[in-house]
Amino acid sequence: MKLASLKHGRDGRLIVVSDDLSHYVEAGAAAPTLQAALDDWAAIEPKLAALADDLAKGAVAAQPLDPAALAAPLPRAYQWADGSAYVNHVELVRRARGAELPESFWHEPLVYQGGSDRFLGPRDAIPLVDEAWGCDMEAEVVVVTDDVPQGTTAEDARKLIRLVGLVNDVSLRNLIPGELAKGFGFYQSKPASALSPIFVTPDALGERWKDGKLHGTLHVDLNGQPFGRADAGVDMTFDFGTLIAHLAKTRSLGAGTIVGSGTVSNRDADGGTGRPVANGGLGYSCIAEVRMVETIRYGTPATPFLRHGDTVRIWMEDDCGQALFGTISQTVESI
Amino acid sequence: MKLASLKHGRDGRLIVVSDDLSHYVEAGAAAPTLQAALDDWAAIEPKLAALADDLAKGAVAAQPLDPAALAAPLPRAYQWADGSAYVNHVELVRRARGAELPESFWHEPLVYQGGSDRFLGPRDAIPLVDEAWGCDMEAEVVVVTDDVPQGTTAEDARKLIRLVGLVNDVSLRNLIPGELAKGFGFYQSKPASALSPIFVTPDALGERWKDGKLHGTLHVDLNGQPFGRADAGVDMTFDFGTLIAHLAKTRSLGAGTIVGSGTVSNRDADGGTGRPVANGGLGYSCIAEVRMVETIRYGTPATPFLRHGDTVRIWMEDDCGQALFGTISQTVESI
Repeated sequence: MKLASLKHGRDGRLIVVSDDLSHYVEAGAAAPTLQAALDDWAAIEPKLAALADDLAKGAVAAQPLDPAALAAPLPRAYQWADGSAYVNHVELVRRARGAELPESFWHEPLVYQGGSDRFLGPRDAIPLVDEAWGCDMEAEVVVVTDDVPQGTTAEDARKLIRLVGLVNDVSLRNLIPGELAKGFGFYQSKPASALSPIFVTPDALGERWKDGKLHGTLHVDLNGQPFGRADAGVDMTFDFGTLIAHLAKTRSLGAGTIVGSGTVSNRDADGGTGRPVANGGLGYSCIAEVRMVETIRYGTPATPFLRHGDTVRIWMEDDCGQALFGTISQTVESI
Repeated sequence: MKLASLKHGRDGRLIVVSDDLSHYVEAGAAAPTLQAALDDWAAIEPKLAALADDLAKGAVAAQPLDPAALAAPLPRAYQWADGSAYVNHVELVRRARGAELPESFWHEPLVYQGGSDRFLGPRDAIPLVDEAWGCDMEAEVVVVTDDVPQGTTAEDARKLIRLVGLVNDVSLRNLIPGELAKGFGFYQSKPASALSPIFVTPDALGERWKDGKLHGTLHVDLNGQPFGRADAGVDMTFDFGTLIAHLAKTRSLGAGTIVGSGTVSNRDADGGTGRPVANGGLGYSCIAEVRMVETIRYGTPATPFLRHGDTVRIWMEDDCGQALFGTISQTVESI
């Protein structure tokens, strides 16, 4: 089942979307918003599934889907917690900051509490006041949980994942070192992130959803050129079940909690740092990584961070080449 | 105007409470929940104010208020961002951890992004799995904002504060050093916090609300003994307007954002670290501070962190000795 939200008020209007993303039907009779559906998933999911069936059979009057009419599936949420499950990425970015990677990072998840009061829609501009802040995209996988009791194991947590999608976790790289040095994590350096147009139930992902990981190529284009083609199922040190269990160690998680994978990152075939797509590599899911690789290889970074007018596209394809979760397509704009 | 939420579903049921907290009237005709009221404050605040007037005049059928029936005013919220405005506290706690206080901390606010998917009610137990985690209360002031556009100044931000209250920001002190060492801030070390029963509009606070600060004694009792009597209006290096402007530098804030002051902390009359209430001082709003002072004075901390069965009470009084925001009254319980 594929769900999305039409732009409407603060929380959007829930719709069920056809498998090929061409059409939708309003889901208001089942739940007005995606959060409302998540608040009572056991009761509402069957109604949404029935709507999806009717839509597939042509048994309801479907509307053509206009991607520009979509908000983030959850335009605001009660929690956004982002992991750093691709430790390869963490290692590179830390090296870029001159920071060491502790050995424990390979055994215990690293997470941060993000801001969830606003998620950008998949076509919304990335508002950037000052290019000197070093704006970067970070292409990641996200899952949305049901209620997760404190102390839930990784195995049980996997069963509480209700939806899967993508995020562009926007970061202001040049604000990060100063902010992290203060010791309390990110705030100003993590403005609003953008969610993929469509969130999909795990059962509808078939073989792509396995062992708490999403498998398949995460496409990232920068200014129309292929920038990243990493496989989200490869080099993910901590699966989503493990991330959620880590989050639930000392507290419960409310229904609709969005958990991020951290920037998807694959090692090169030779085990080293990745090469650009243009050089036959799998590329990168954020600019910071290519800048680090450039620094290692040539002594200095060459790729600039995002500037006004730059465009970012993030998507994953199904076996027919269709965008599984729709496409995040954003332009950086001054505000 | 004083607002609260009866325990009901995930978001409670909004009520308007009499000035002396003895009675209430349901506010469902104006807004079903406090979040709904905040989502459309300009339209709904006058209706709530009219209800409050009727309640004061005895023009509506009022119900007696049972504090045990109250949830947190916002049982879940879209954002909880906690400052560290009482730099005296930050300095002491850092010293306790053997960490230096950078000079910049006196000029630029320190904040962390907290979890907002669940706030404990004012009478709810503090669930604690393991006493070895070092559970601590932190008594703070909070404000709730309207929508705050990116780039809002401190002066303008003060005008966007809709409600004022208190919080017990529960911390797991023994998990903090390891978590902060990972560099991404708090997560496991900050379980759900408890909000005061009542949130109050700034205009109803009179002289106690001035220059973006709440003035008056913050009472903290531990196991029935006076533990803290600091004045929230004293030694607050950054007022709430300044904290909110800091938060809004790179992003907007959604209506219903809860902003914390950080643990209230006063220096001693001689300018040094505070003395216990029993010794004629103003005491402390968290245990970590008294442990630090004990370490400085006697070489080792004597006051243990919270244990199962311990009780914490946090309140502030009006001129008649009534609890302005009601009383947070919690017992630590194993779960």
